[in-house]
Formats: sequence, C-alpha cells, structure tokens
Amino acid sequence: MSNVKISSDALRDFCIGCFKQRGVPETDARLTAENLIFANLRGVDSHGVIRLKIYLDRLKVGGFKADAVPSVATEQESSAVIDGGHGLGQVAATAAMKLAILKASHAGVAFVSTKNSNHFGACAFYAVQGLQDGMIGFAATNAGPSMAPTGGREARLGNNAFAVAIPAGKYPPIILDMATGAVAWGKIFVAQQENRKIPTTWALDKHGVPTDDPNAAAHQGLIQPFGGYKGYGLSLLIDILTGVLSGAGFSTHVRTLYKDVENPSQVGHLCGALRIESFIPLDAFSCRIEEFIDMMRSSAKAPGVERILVPGEIEHEIEQKRRADGIPLNDTLLAELRGLASELSVRFPL
Amino acid sequence: MSNVKISSDALRDFCIGCFKQRGVPETDARLTAENLIFANLRGVDSHGVIRLKIYLDRLKVGGFKADAVPSVATEQESSAVIDGGHGLGQVAATAAMKLAILKASHAGVAFVSTKNSNHFGACAFYAVQGLQDGMIGFAATNAGPSMAPTGGREARLGNNAFAVAIPAGKYPPIILDMATGAVAWGKIFVAQQENRKIPTTWALDKHGVPTDDPNAAAHQGLIQPFGGYKGYGLSLLIDILTGVLSGAGFSTHVRTLYKDVENPSQVGHLCGALRIESFIPLDAFSCRIEEFIDMMRSSAKAPGVERILVPGEIEHEIEQKRRADGIPLNDTLLAELRGLASELSVRFPL
Repeated sequence: MSNVKISSDALRDFCIGCFKQRGVPETDARLTAENLIFANLRGVDSHGVIRLKIYLDRLKVGGFKADAVPSVATEQESSAVIDGGHGLGQVAATAAMKLAILKASHAGVAFVSTKNSNHFGACAFYAVQGLQDGMIGFAATNAGPSMAPTGGREARLGNNAFAVAIPAGKYPPIILDMATGAVAWGKIFVAQQENRKIPTTWALDKHGVPTDDPNAAAHQGLIQPFGGYKGYGLSLLIDILTGVLSGAGFSTHVRTLYKDVENPSQVGHLCGALRIESFIPLDAFSCRIEEFIDMMRSSAKAPGVERILVPGEIEHEIEQKRRADGIPLNDTLLAELRGLASELSVRFPL
Repeated sequence: MSNVKISSDALRDFCIGCFKQRGVPETDARLTAENLIFANLRGVDSHGVIRLKIYLDRLKVGGFKADAVPSVATEQESSAVIDGGHGLGQVAATAAMKLAILKASHAGVAFVSTKNSNHFGACAFYAVQGLQDGMIGFAATNAGPSMAPTGGREARLGNNAFAVAIPAGKYPPIILDMATGAVAWGKIFVAQQENRKIPTTWALDKHGVPTDDPNAAAHQGLIQPFGGYKGYGLSLLIDILTGVLSGAGFSTHVRTLYKDVENPSQVGHLCGALRIESFIPLDAFSCRIEEFIDMMRSSAKAPGVERILVPGEIEHEIEQKRRADGIPLNDTLLAELRGLASELSVRFPL
C-alpha cells in the first residue's frame, strides 16, 4: 500500500469544491473543509477526509441540508440554544461556539447547546476557537447508538465525545479530545485480520459478555465504554447535556452517520467558553500552566518510557510535520476521493 | 465486627457539637456536619464521619482555620472566584455553589472557582444544591498528589474528582460522582489481607509498572487513573480547572489531608450551575430525561444482570434505608468517635 501525500491547502480546496457542487454556500463549504483538514493535519484521520464521501452523499439525498442557516432558538447572558436546521454539524457548532465565546467575553463563562444538527467532525476544532482570545474552550457531541449501558447488551448510547482546549503560555495548548468508547472499531478489525486476541475491556459479544475474541466482538457485539461504569457515566452525561437538554435527539433517537442517510440524524452538541481573565490574570495563568506542564513532564519515568506527554502534544507535533510534508492518503481513500472528483466534476489535485 | 447503627440526626448533632468545640461557628459547623452525614447516608462512607477526626485535628493545629469567612475575590455576570481563607472546604465550596446558582438564575449558566480551600468531602453534596431550582449542578475538586501522569512513576496528580447532578422528573436525580483513580486504596488493602491478585489496571509498583500484586502496589506504589490515559487526561483537566485557574495549589503544591496537618492544604474547587429553563422548558426536560432513563433501563441485559442502573440510583436507595434504619458504624470508627467525644467533652449519642 502506497501512501501518497497531498498538501493540506490542496486537499482543503478540493473539499470546498465538492461541497459547493452539492449546494453548500462558499463560507460553509470552507468551514466544513477546514474541520476535516484540521483532523487530518493532527493525525486524527478517522475524522478527516475519510468522512467527505458520506457528507456529500447525505447532502445529495437530504440527510444534511446544504443551505441550512443556524438560528438562535433562545438565549440569555451566558446561555443559548442554536437550531442547526438539519444542516452541516460544522456550521451549526461553529455558530454555537462563536456565540459562546462572545457571551463569555462579556459574562465570564457561557455555554451554548445545539439541536437539529448532524455529525460535526473533531470536537477539538471548536474547543480551540477561543484560544487566541484567552478562552478555555469546550465542545461535546452525542452520536448514534453504539454502546450499551453497563449491564446491558443493546446499543443505547453513542460513542459520545468531548474536547477541552486550554491556552498554555509558551507551550502548545493543552487539547484533550476523547470519545467515551474504550477503542475504535478499526482496532478490533485489525486484530481480526491479524488473528490476535483483544483486551477484555474493549468489546462485548452479542450476549453482552466481555470478550477477548475480535470475531465475537465484530459479530453483533458492541464497543465497551472506556474505564467500565465510569465511562458509561460520562457517555450518559454527554448525551444528557448535548441531547436531552438541547432538544436534539438522544439515545436511540440519534441516527448514526452511515444509516438512514436521507434523514436528519438529530445530533446535539454543547459548546462552552470560559474567559481566563475573569478568574485570574492571563499572565499569571500562563506562568502557572507552564509550571503545571513542567511538573507533569518532570516526573520520574516508568521503564521504557521516553517522554511524559500532556494531551494534544502528539497531535501538535504531527500537525507541524504534515503542514510541511502533506497529508498521507492510502490507496483506498485516494480512490474514493478520485471517484468523488469524477462524480462532481471537481479537479483532484494529484 | 459488630455494626452499630446510629440515627443520622444524632450523628449529625454529634459532629456539630465537636466542630463547635473547635471554634467553628454554628452555621458552618452544621453545614460541614451535613456534608459528612450526606456521604454516610448515601453509603459513601469514605467521605463520611470517618473524616471527622482529621478535620478536628486540623482545626486544632491551624491546618483548617475555624473562623474563616469566604470572600469573593473577583466576579462577573457568570463567573467568580471565592477565597476560602483556608477554612473548611465545605464552607468555601458551599459559598461558591450558592453564588453559581444565583448567577445562573439570572444569566443561564455560571461557574465559580475557589482558592485557599481544603478537603470538601463528597462532590455530590454541592452538585445537588440547585436541583430544587431546576438547575443541573457541577462540582469538582483537586487533591493532594497520589497518581502519576501516564508513563510516570511519581505522584503528580490527585485522585481528583467531580460530580454532576441532574433533575430527573418523577425519578430520583441522576447523580454522577466520580474520582479519576481506578480504585480506592481500601480495595487494594483488602486484596493484601485476602492474599488475592488485583487487576493490572488498578495500581503501579514503585517502578511505575502495572502490577497484579497488591503488596507491590502498597509498597511505594501508586493508584492508576481509571481507563488509562483518558483518566489521566480527566484528572489533569480537573487540576487545571480547580487549581491552576483559581489561584489555588495544583499538582504537588496541594497537600494531602493527612500530612503536614498544621498547614493549609491549598485545595481548589470549581462549582457550576446550569439553569435548565434557559435551554428548554423544565416540563419538556422532565419528560425527556424520564424517557432517557427508561431507555437505559430497558436495554436487554447481559447474563446475570438483574437491573441496569443510572448514576446515583444505588446511593438513593441506600439513603432511603439509612434514613430509616440509621448509619452503620464499625467498631474501629465507633471507638474513634467515642474518643473524640471524650476529648472534646461532647456527649456521644450511644
């Protein structure tokens, strides 16, 4: 398998071209493309251009409304609900995050939830938007059901996810971006191919019993929440805050991205911003967070460990490299993108 | 070992008497006693009257200032910082939570952090304070270092904890209250006594290597964060939001409750409130959260599972039972409380 590399600018422009061909306005097309490229640049390829095809498919058949304009359904000084109008999740969530930042700049802290939205890509994309204004950013989303509540064997919760971004003075920002599942399906498929057992904390078989057999997991099994019942608690909390509270779908009312593609998926989000200066002078915060990071890094290390990392550090380094060298695309993905180029009459940049 | 039971009212009054003898004003004594009894009632005995002796010891030697009055260090419409004045954590955090609820009732959402505070008992105690006003409550705290960052073998993070309380219509509130450690030390000590191995996800040995030997864990080892590096990320996030942001101690600057007892422990907290009506009518929320809970409970069950629970359900049931039957105290704890009664000339209610 070859790995062609393509510049992030060229790949972004290609995505923009595709979205526009599906009737997405220029600004929204650019925003959504940037969200996908943001993930690829950071090495989070699961949320990058691998999603372009399904987004375009949904735009074609109405599962995503190309020209939806987010509107404010209700608001107060430090809260609001955005109605995404069943458009691209990126467009709705960016509107929510911008409003949260604006409100936090006046009030100190603000949270804005979003209903009638869709898949919004990488959570971190929204959480980082207030960094340059001295904001700690928060973003969370629910998703179509893929995990059981602890003790269950039917999917009732999504692999719900959240991110927090924290300015870190002279260091790259701390960016914690985590899903509540123990593992991505991809890792289980790899274990299947390589005929390897999996940790019993990763998946359940179809009876709801933890299994070390990747085939049993893949055959009507489910991913487990990370960390046992604590991960279940976090996933449930995110579904309540993004779905139940906003007026969006929740639990099995949320549609997964790849099924029932002609219908809105009823995803909900929650975006928040916290203005650091409302708590402590930004200079003092910068000194303190730098010291905090130094304290993590300077712990004596376990055998075989070269570095102690803080969240977002690896992704930051990958981003530096990929900005310079380009984004690697495997053959399968490359063929898919070339197919889209042909279908939509958009020039593919390779 | 006998288990004497004592009524929660009698036990609370005993605690109040003890605190007053150490110079704590009546209102603050009552508040702190209620926090301890709240934990015992809910079956969270690790945060109940087992902490009374160390609190009284710290009050005696100055590690807790008995007459500290919390003050507002800075505030905006939806944010504030409370200075706890090195008094009881319960007093400072209650002031923070009340202020968060007040601000959220006007602005929609508010977060108030606390510096110069101390151990504050069970997080859920604060998170539940806005339930009757239709608020979702949040409380978090850092703690003295007891866990290593992932890859390390020195304690750099506390077993930092948070709680969220959510009104649930006709059902008891959902109360998620979790520490970021994989396990409490008590469970490792029990495995030692019973000569049983422990899961390798619980603890590190003194070299920073995961171990299944409870003796290796207890001998200069450390608790692991729950769920691996994701738990590390959560613990780090809580330390930043409660410590770095507030002006409190963080990482190794926070003192553990049982060491260096004559000095303030520099604990930080973050309390938050979110007014549900600012997002969605409370009636609609109640219907939706009831349906959500029904959806969790109605999942087909794994073999051997009788019920699927939502967070806080077990604690709620224990509370009903203990309110009726009393709070069980083992011989060791009973002797300790009798000793305090004698030392402080407070009548013990048994």
